[in-house]
Amino acid sequence: MYKAPVDEISFTLKHVAGMAGALESGALGDLGEDLVDAILSEAGRFATEEVAPLGDVGDRQGSRLVDGKVQTPDGWRDLYHNWIGGGWNGLTAPEEFGGQNLPHMLHVAAMEMWNAGSMAFALGPTLTMGAVDALEKHGSEALKGTYLPKMVSGEWTGTMNLTEPHAGSDLGVLKSRAERRDDGTYRIFGQKIFITWGEHDFTDNIVHLVLARLPDAPAGTKGISLFLVPKFLVNTDGSLGERNDLFCHSLEHKLGIHGSPTCTMIYGDGKFGAEKGAIGYLIGEENRGLACMFTMMNNARLAVGMQGVAIADAATQKAIAFAKERTQGKAPGWSGEGMSPIIEHPDVARMLLTMKALTQGSRAIAYACAHAVDMGHADGDKTTYWQERSSLLTPIAKSFATDAGVDVASLGIQVHGGMGFIEETGAARYLRDARIAPIYEGTNGIQAIDLVTRKLPLSGGAHVRGFIAELREIASAVRASNREGFGATAARLDVALDDLSDATEWLLAAVSAGKLSEALAGATAYQRLFGLALTGAYLAKGGLAKTSDGKDEQRIALSRFAAENMLAETSALKDLVVTGADSLAAARAVLG
Amino acid sequence: MYKAPVDEISFTLKHVAGMAGALESGALGDLGEDLVDAILSEAGRFATEEVAPLGDVGDRQGSRLVDGKVQTPDGWRDLYHNWIGGGWNGLTAPEEFGGQNLPHMLHVAAMEMWNAGSMAFALGPTLTMGAVDALEKHGSEALKGTYLPKMVSGEWTGTMNLTEPHAGSDLGVLKSRAERRDDGTYRIFGQKIFITWGEHDFTDNIVHLVLARLPDAPAGTKGISLFLVPKFLVNTDGSLGERNDLFCHSLEHKLGIHGSPTCTMIYGDGKFGAEKGAIGYLIGEENRGLACMFTMMNNARLAVGMQGVAIADAATQKAIAFAKERTQGKAPGWSGEGMSPIIEHPDVARMLLTMKALTQGSRAIAYACAHAVDMGHADGDKTTYWQERSSLLTPIAKSFATDAGVDVASLGIQVHGGMGFIEETGAARYLRDARIAPIYEGTNGIQAIDLVTRKLPLSGGAHVRGFIAELREIASAVRASNREGFGATAARLDVALDDLSDATEWLLAAVSAGKLSEALAGATAYQRLFGLALTGAYLAKGGLAKTSDGKDEQRIALSRFAAENMLAETSALKDLVVTGADSLAAARAVLG
Repeated sequence: MYKAPVDEISFTLKHVAGMAGALESGALGDLGEDLVDAILSEAGRFATEEVAPLGDVGDRQGSRLVDGKVQTPDGWRDLYHNWIGGGWNGLTAPEEFGGQNLPHMLHVAAMEMWNAGSMAFALGPTLTMGAVDALEKHGSEALKGTYLPKMVSGEWTGTMNLTEPHAGSDLGVLKSRAERRDDGTYRIFGQKIFITWGEHDFTDNIVHLVLARLPDAPAGTKGISLFLVPKFLVNTDGSLGERNDLFCHSLEHKLGIHGSPTCTMIYGDGKFGAEKGAIGYLIGEENRGLACMFTMMNNARLAVGMQGVAIADAATQKAIAFAKERTQGKAPGWSGEGMSPIIEHPDVARMLLTMKALTQGSRAIAYACAHAVDMGHADGDKTTYWQERSSLLTPIAKSFATDAGVDVASLGIQVHGGMGFIEETGAARYLRDARIAPIYEGTNGIQAIDLVTRKLPLSGGAHVRGFIAELREIASAVRASNREGFGATAARLDVALDDLSDATEWLLAAVSAGKLSEALAGATAYQRLFGLALTGAYLAKGGLAKTSDGKDEQRIALSRFAAENMLAETSALKDLVVTGADSLAAARAVLG
Repeated sequence: MYKAPVDEISFTLKHVAGMAGALESGALGDLGEDLVDAILSEAGRFATEEVAPLGDVGDRQGSRLVDGKVQTPDGWRDLYHNWIGGGWNGLTAPEEFGGQNLPHMLHVAAMEMWNAGSMAFALGPTLTMGAVDALEKHGSEALKGTYLPKMVSGEWTGTMNLTEPHAGSDLGVLKSRAERRDDGTYRIFGQKIFITWGEHDFTDNIVHLVLARLPDAPAGTKGISLFLVPKFLVNTDGSLGERNDLFCHSLEHKLGIHGSPTCTMIYGDGKFGAEKGAIGYLIGEENRGLACMFTMMNNARLAVGMQGVAIADAATQKAIAFAKERTQGKAPGWSGEGMSPIIEHPDVARMLLTMKALTQGSRAIAYACAHAVDMGHADGDKTTYWQERSSLLTPIAKSFATDAGVDVASLGIQVHGGMGFIEETGAARYLRDARIAPIYEGTNGIQAIDLVTRKLPLSGGAHVRGFIAELREIASAVRASNREGFGATAARLDVALDDLSDATEWLLAAVSAGKLSEALAGATAYQRLFGLALTGAYLAKGGLAKTSDGKDEQRIALSRFAAENMLAETSALKDLVVTGADSLAAARAVLG
């Protein structure tokens, strides 16, 4: 059973991702280490004791649509109410609306643990927080006053309605429409698919944020507006009024995250209300809806990255426990009685260490990204620097961590052997759940396009160059440390960073020359290269930390393992970025 | 929907794997190209028109245990009877027992197509053929006379009962026991798990081959005997007699291959028959059961490799079709109306070409292995050479193709975006089905141990060295061809083969020096390195073929794509093999 690794998380936040410095400098206000530790510890306890035990039942039962109502898995409604009762829903929300205004770093750390307990469960609140974010930044005071307090407390949940059958990655072609009414409200019509937690029995009301198009809107992404469309209208005294004209038509039958209802939502079908059309309230300006959505998109992408980290950690814990318990054959050098635990077999140990390194690397990247988000909000003279850093790290955190989630979960099955294929073992669920994360909130291919065409050119390339220079300092520090345990870490990291630098320069030149086809041919490989180099660098940074937890040598050994076993791939990836486009273009005919 | 790629399969058999030469030299007896083509074409038709349409229903319904009987999915019983009606079950079986005695190459090609239609369905006959093989090689004339004709025709099916809860990869510790009776029969007692198609409604009888231990047997693998244990005893006139004392206790709830019943079998519980104990007949000699099993093990491993090829091909076909249909965004250089098909996006094209190359590479490796099996049976002065070749290729074919099956199926989901996560789309099934193949018939980690410790040292290393030399001739031929379309293929292949050669020499030295821990630390990486190098070489060999099918240039382009985009990984893998063991050993403490 999953046990939240509070110590490892706390170490990574403080000593790798930059929280220790931020606490000291006052960049996080009057937040102190004691409060940080208390929050991590309680979030971990909740994940371990309350969420994780209900993960399996959620997977087995799934959420079901019965007579138009979504029934969540046994125990989940209480779980949700315990969770909001702990105040977790408003962790980062503004105090003005009942939130705790705590740093994003703490939030992602807590999200990691809840997602590890049950990704399907933790996904719901993630959507609410995204909706809170968009509403808080772009909504009118009246809308905020009516909806935010209850969305921050968790009394009502929120959803994001973007996708339509023909509009997924490309929202410019969506067809849902909005009509203006004289009273300043709108009527919303259309069908939305893949709406996560679009309907459920946790709360009395659900607040849908819906993208739709006005009749006179320009074509494409510049003609999309964002509306708040509540399931139940809200009376002026805050009580619930009439049912709005929207409903959940069906649930998807998915590979994983069965507990999370993925809804097809119908707006304005005339099922409810006197007049056809779901009543909606404009958020922000007409035709500027996509900009409102983008406000929350970066944080949502990082949140999905946390799901990758979460599943990776949970799958790794499970596989290690199994490999210590299960005996089979005799490993080389095994001198014990009878068969050896399979963890003694070099191949199994390699799988587990690879899982460990990918988990820890992904975690460090994601937390570093969250740190940059926090610092971008802090007063200071480096606001642009930190905002660029979080922009740059977001696609890497999202893609590398979610790919790691899938790879690690798959390795976890392999470690379990035949038992891994049996659902009751629980290893397979991790793969099934993890498999959506590289897809939603922008496929990892979309992240790579974003990284190469929008993030690398920030400050004319100066930001990414500066970042690589910072990473080189880690390699130098490893060399200067003279710790034997690091082995060839510094040398391997140098090579990886050379590869990263070369690939970066090549891509910057290609993008600036308008050679988009060439640049995008290697974008995914580059994104992975960046993630691997960061994994190497951040594991080394962890190894450099001097603590009293007795794990300094282990961190050095894991850093060395990653450097000497996993970083060599960067040269192949750089090669692909720099030379792969021609052969890709030449082979297109093969696909018919 | 899957369409059997008969032309691609036929090309690979003849021009890459060696069938053209074997037909010409008479190594395959009087088999002619016309018959080969007719068989491939009809096997493909059956896969496309009869198996594939029933794949989904098998996945959805699964096989169910109702009142002690296994109900297979709707339509599957008829499908099976149509399939044996076509004579497919006895394709490679001896003519003496009603088989067609055709080469193994044809068999694996046909198996690929049936597995692509439904891996869960095609798995059953694979087990029967394994049982036929073991019985034919080791059974008494009486046993063969009674059982083989009906197992060859498919009137009865066969199973392999190896695994027990505590004995998976390590069969030495199995506990099922056998007692001698005065009449020369035995009574079998014990529980076996993970018994594929151990019970079903296809046929009136099921012939179980069961490993068990005699009371006075030596400990370990040298004390295991093999027994034939029929579900129904067979009267002297061939009619069915009493029910034997064995039954299916339960079915596993699995990640994939839902149509295939995975049974826990109980022997000798007293549920049937007057006297406790399932009646069994010894196959081969007492305590030599494992040797009998090993007879069929190599072919079974190759058969599982074919499942990897099959799923990879089916997943690739599906993803390509979707990527041509689905439009989203505008790819760089897209000048058409509206959104471009997603296949135009470089990242999607790269995924699809990678899928294509992995599929074709795996197929070529597996067919080359089957060719070696056939040649090892042919009269000639190179019997040892071919037997060593098939021994060497078997673990690579099994592991590389099954890993490719998982990786390609996962990429296939990614190409589908959100739709890939929805079960009705069918892309997710491929990943769920494929995930067992790297595990059963010896995990891929066990294959790597076999490759490094038993196969590399064949003929003192001379065989593998000779093989690498043969592969170098392909690189030379590419260079000599002066075909511009090959790009840097020859140079990239040279590097990959250098890496393979270096890693091979290092491993040969390590194994011969008894440094098993060091050798096994990189065994899986080496196995992948070998598979990648073979993929590069065999794709190039295909590109060198001159045909009139109009696809010569496409094969050259795919070969170049693989060489310039996928082969660079071999250097990282070689590096890991040669230098990775120390850091792996040093990091073991991280795992606690």
